[in-house]
Amino acid sequence: MFSHESLKNFCIETFLKIGCPPDHAEMAADVLISADLRGVDSHGVLKLPGYVRLWEVGRVNTKPNIKIVHETPSTASVDGDRGLGLVVAPLVMKMALEKAEAVGSGWMSVKNSNHFGIAGYHAMMALKHDMVGIAMTNASPHAAPTFSAERLLGTNPISVAIPAGQEPPFVADFATTTVAHGKLVLRQRKGESLPSGWAQDADGKPTINAFTTHEGGALVPLGSDRERGSQKGYCLGAIVDIFSAMLSGANYGPWVPPFPAHLPIPEDSVGEGIGHFLGAFRIDAFRPAEEFKAHMDTWIRRFRDAKPAEGHDRVYIPGDPEREMAEKRKAEGIPLMDSVVKDLNELAEKLGIKFPSS
Amino acid sequence: MFSHESLKNFCIETFLKIGCPPDHAEMAADVLISADLRGVDSHGVLKLPGYVRLWEVGRVNTKPNIKIVHETPSTASVDGDRGLGLVVAPLVMKMALEKAEAVGSGWMSVKNSNHFGIAGYHAMMALKHDMVGIAMTNASPHAAPTFSAERLLGTNPISVAIPAGQEPPFVADFATTTVAHGKLVLRQRKGESLPSGWAQDADGKPTINAFTTHEGGALVPLGSDRERGSQKGYCLGAIVDIFSAMLSGANYGPWVPPFPAHLPIPEDSVGEGIGHFLGAFRIDAFRPAEEFKAHMDTWIRRFRDAKPAEGHDRVYIPGDPEREMAEKRKAEGIPLMDSVVKDLNELAEKLGIKFPSS
Repeated sequence: MFSHESLKNFCIETFLKIGCPPDHAEMAADVLISADLRGVDSHGVLKLPGYVRLWEVGRVNTKPNIKIVHETPSTASVDGDRGLGLVVAPLVMKMALEKAEAVGSGWMSVKNSNHFGIAGYHAMMALKHDMVGIAMTNASPHAAPTFSAERLLGTNPISVAIPAGQEPPFVADFATTTVAHGKLVLRQRKGESLPSGWAQDADGKPTINAFTTHEGGALVPLGSDRERGSQKGYCLGAIVDIFSAMLSGANYGPWVPPFPAHLPIPEDSVGEGIGHFLGAFRIDAFRPAEEFKAHMDTWIRRFRDAKPAEGHDRVYIPGDPEREMAEKRKAEGIPLMDSVVKDLNELAEKLGIKFPSS
Repeated sequence: MFSHESLKNFCIETFLKIGCPPDHAEMAADVLISADLRGVDSHGVLKLPGYVRLWEVGRVNTKPNIKIVHETPSTASVDGDRGLGLVVAPLVMKMALEKAEAVGSGWMSVKNSNHFGIAGYHAMMALKHDMVGIAMTNASPHAAPTFSAERLLGTNPISVAIPAGQEPPFVADFATTTVAHGKLVLRQRKGESLPSGWAQDADGKPTINAFTTHEGGALVPLGSDRERGSQKGYCLGAIVDIFSAMLSGANYGPWVPPFPAHLPIPEDSVGEGIGHFLGAFRIDAFRPAEEFKAHMDTWIRRFRDAKPAEGHDRVYIPGDPEREMAEKRKAEGIPLMDSVVKDLNELAEKLGIKFPSS
């Protein structure tokens, strides 16, 4: 077990070593550690060496000049200047919050960025302002649209964070495929096959082979197949792609560059970097916030108190599992797989810094 | 086969008979017939007698005073004054378009409304203005959240319409359950069982019994079950509920009143009527519309030209099937089930008007 403070400090040192200004290093570290705390291990410190490799090959600019390209009172498109998504997204979310403060809502589409960590972090920035926050991003193609044998969409996550009163906030944060890519990788590591409905083979037929994406296969959209509504998951992934990249001028669909720095960038690029879409609106742009939050409490309590299905003992509110995990890990520490500890020690050695002991 | 013009005229006459002003009658009829044209038969003229029954029991006001309760430059909450959703939604969407024209985007949450027909109609109103349109609505509880044995959410649809250049627009329009309620009813009429992943029984266990909702069962969220991501469909349905009802002051969750006029309204009401959320933003609030639309064409062509999965001959763009159906039905007419023709003839007789011949 590692304390979240020590891991965060290690991230800060790493980001400083690759040239991030101190405020950016702190911001990026906070995003990464929030993923580990919330139990989204695939988007936490595990990815730190990957971000460094992107910087090494020149795909990440650690001193970005993030600027608005075009704007109206409630919208803007933003150039992330090849910054770390971990920095670009929180800074752009702040701009969205300012617009919402001024005219009720703010909506930002961002090009020329990189992987932004967990979407939930950015959406949740709205909560303390009594605003609803929304964050989405496109990603390199791992998923096939319904009826397609080709991979054309990323796992393209959506997060929506909504404040409540006495109750904890409602926080949805999910990939628009049946499962995030990390879940597939975990099955590969454990040598297990997949549940039905997660993936397809190179011909577009359902498969339970965990290595299918190494063999021309693909993840499938939420819904699993046409009969169970995968065209809806395909719609969602497409909407995220279009809002994130088409409004801003980023790459979209099969042209989105991959996270691993050793993989080639798709040819005939159609835009700059990857794209995000970040938005916020004030609750009191619709009705008094206290009224809204009292009703949110009623909603949350009614759903939480619902009769559980046979074999289950509770109905969760979106955000419950991650919040409970964060409480536990803040108290007990964050567990890391041996392979991750090894990677981070190697990174520390390369950068001449020290990885904390468990 | 019935011509769409004759069916539309019949709808107009019906709405005039129950007291709608001529412009409202025309508007409501246009929404209904667009559903029949697009192949969404469950939301077309089939529902006309149901709207009339809601008026008969005093739940629909055909001369509504639709007014903004609170607003900012980019947002508003609206009181639908118990109007037909078929009228309230297009009128409120116009307000959203005006706000988008003025400040880039417009977002409206509506209370005190009724069933608004197909979400896609309202979202598509944005297209001719080179805007993106978004429409969602809550509905009476037919679906159980993940791990719940109780029905707490409606099929809560989402529609997003996005303009393209040479290509037809992208139009997503889908229930956030694996299937809309109409699909279940169709299986009941045919005496067929359900595919797995559509529904659960009164204990919350998976079932293929098409009559499960008559026996305490429920539809399930998009994703079907926890292993295949139903918690994501649950998040989507919840977000639609909260945006539509909690921002505006409508009923939410298990308190949303049912469409059939003979069913009781849930006790201890938490708001007024049902709720919608309607929004729009200008493409050129982000980048020049021509640039965006050229990229949309590239996106659409790349996806349409993707290699199909084995056993399929094409990859669809969201909106393709409905647009092709509308072209066909405009030319060949709209088929109606005998039971629907019978209902409409009875309605005509009651109102002293004439139902067209096929």
